[in-house]
Amino acid sequence: MLTDEIWMQRALDLAQLGGGFVVPNPWVGCVVVRDGIMLGEGYHAHYGGPHAEVRAFEGIQDASGSTAYVSLEPCSHTGKTPPCANLLIKHQVQRVVICNLDPNPLVAGQGVAKLQAAGIDVQIGVLSEKGELINRRFFYYHRNQRSYITVKYASSADQFIAHSNGHAQVFSNAISHQLVHRLRAEHQAILVGVNTANADNPSLTTRSWPGNSPLRFVLDPQARMDDNLVLLQDEFPTYIFTYSVTKSVGNKQWIALGSVDYLKTFMTYCQENSIQSILIEGGARTIETFMQEIEVQEIIHIESNEALDSGIAAPHIDESYAKKYSVGSNNSWRIQLGKENLA
Amino acid sequence: MLTDEIWMQRALDLAQLGGGFVVPNPWVGCVVVRDGIMLGEGYHAHYGGPHAEVRAFEGIQDASGSTAYVSLEPCSHTGKTPPCANLLIKHQVQRVVICNLDPNPLVAGQGVAKLQAAGIDVQIGVLSEKGELINRRFFYYHRNQRSYITVKYASSADQFIAHSNGHAQVFSNAISHQLVHRLRAEHQAILVGVNTANADNPSLTTRSWPGNSPLRFVLDPQARMDDNLVLLQDEFPTYIFTYSVTKSVGNKQWIALGSVDYLKTFMTYCQENSIQSILIEGGARTIETFMQEIEVQEIIHIESNEALDSGIAAPHIDESYAKKYSVGSNNSWRIQLGKENLA
Repeated sequence: MLTDEIWMQRALDLAQLGGGFVVPNPWVGCVVVRDGIMLGEGYHAHYGGPHAEVRAFEGIQDASGSTAYVSLEPCSHTGKTPPCANLLIKHQVQRVVICNLDPNPLVAGQGVAKLQAAGIDVQIGVLSEKGELINRRFFYYHRNQRSYITVKYASSADQFIAHSNGHAQVFSNAISHQLVHRLRAEHQAILVGVNTANADNPSLTTRSWPGNSPLRFVLDPQARMDDNLVLLQDEFPTYIFTYSVTKSVGNKQWIALGSVDYLKTFMTYCQENSIQSILIEGGARTIETFMQEIEVQEIIHIESNEALDSGIAAPHIDESYAKKYSVGSNNSWRIQLGKENLA
Repeated sequence: MLTDEIWMQRALDLAQLGGGFVVPNPWVGCVVVRDGIMLGEGYHAHYGGPHAEVRAFEGIQDASGSTAYVSLEPCSHTGKTPPCANLLIKHQVQRVVICNLDPNPLVAGQGVAKLQAAGIDVQIGVLSEKGELINRRFFYYHRNQRSYITVKYASSADQFIAHSNGHAQVFSNAISHQLVHRLRAEHQAILVGVNTANADNPSLTTRSWPGNSPLRFVLDPQARMDDNLVLLQDEFPTYIFTYSVTKSVGNKQWIALGSVDYLKTFMTYCQENSIQSILIEGGARTIETFMQEIEVQEIIHIESNEALDSGIAAPHIDESYAKKYSVGSNNSWRIQLGKENLA
């Protein structure tokens, strides 16, 4: 007979399919099993769409006596959909196995309480570390009321991130390029400094991975962005954070934060606007400023195996506890998670 | 903008989730996209359950002008569900992108014809090689009217598969063990010879991977199986193929094939009973007999990096064009696909 861990792993695998589409909602999967037979399964597939439990039970005629594996505590409140705890009760599920409790104060244990009050056997914590990892941005945000910050940069083998004249150099390969676009889809916002915006003219959209584009943020204290940049000319919204300029042109918005405690005020802005996660894509100075002034939860460093010999130095970051993975034949992918984001 | 290949890859990723649950149906995924936004997605999740297209369109209010990415040609016939081609037409999809045509004579181009007759722009063949690989067992069966045969065995580094006295030795590790159970879920039937049945007393069920157990076949010409084996004592059906014994005890069935052309008659039996795929799990003699008398489409060889020094020799198989993958620290996984199964 299949064990709880195997079915929960499947629920987590399904949960991750929501990755680029459900932000800022959590990634959730659900599998309904009776006598070792999967009766139905589902996941939260896009923001505003049905919850995992709703998808899993669609089309099941009779789920009485079954076990439901859910990667996150079923909700107990009426949001865009009725409470999933009620759905499980209505279907006469006998047992509910949960990976992680939901830290969202609208749920926070009340889903479990509702199930137990209905006489359902509830087990919590199966593969909980894997679930914590998958939903680390969601969990961090709700526990700390603060945006989860991921720093991402790419460098040569000798730790340069661009040519000395500021011209960009591509360090990624086809695979790491896709992984970067996946990161973009998985974050609610993406941020660069004005120098990177002007030098690289990036679009900062999600193009090479199925998923939504993040909100685009530029830190530009003096409002020096070139008018002809893609970020100001294309059809997607852009938010530019300045010391003192407030204006809007179409869906491009300049927001004045003041020059005192600029970065801390930016973080307050993000908190007030419920920005769950931000991917910082450079440049070196922006990254170093974040590392020094703001707590960073995750660092992604793509390293080419080729040297550049000279250029603009990579940000100075202690990556001593990063995990390193080979990506294709000429890239490595280092990931370092802050300790606090898994607490 | 995301390309057709990226959305089709997602449809294929979804398709594979059906792996252990939909056999002998094909694995199919579907993603509905408009203006770069995913409106809905789905996959065929279990045998008898809704088709991928049905799941994908559930909950989409308005799909007019969208593109549907489907990993297999939409069906045009009424099976357990109404034709999916009609569903796409009803939803006013503007464009349908298909990975592979369906060789099933009940569909075979008629799905495409129906869509085109309704004025829908149809594109065929996006990532077709990946689709061929994923559904290789389904395609082979329908094109050749013959079961797809996979041979799987595990050996020591020095090519022994058991101790000299016939006692089993575990060569797999936790990961390759899971992969074997995945293979079981993905095949319609699993087969061993009577010597392996008597020596190892295997259960041949799927336990370490989410999916269904295959039908269990034993080649036992002289009806020599021990009565107390799990295969004859547990609650699951077992089919035993003999020269001349025909009987049934509960859900265990002995089937006489005659002694002339025994193995060929067995293959005819499988054809007549629509057995799409068979996983041969040993022993060496059964495997060698299949290799010599019956065309085999796929070989999986798990090799431990430890030597056994002596024992029963592994089957003699030319694996010169196998691909080799490391599995954990002490196993390798070789896979060799017949050329004809990708034709």
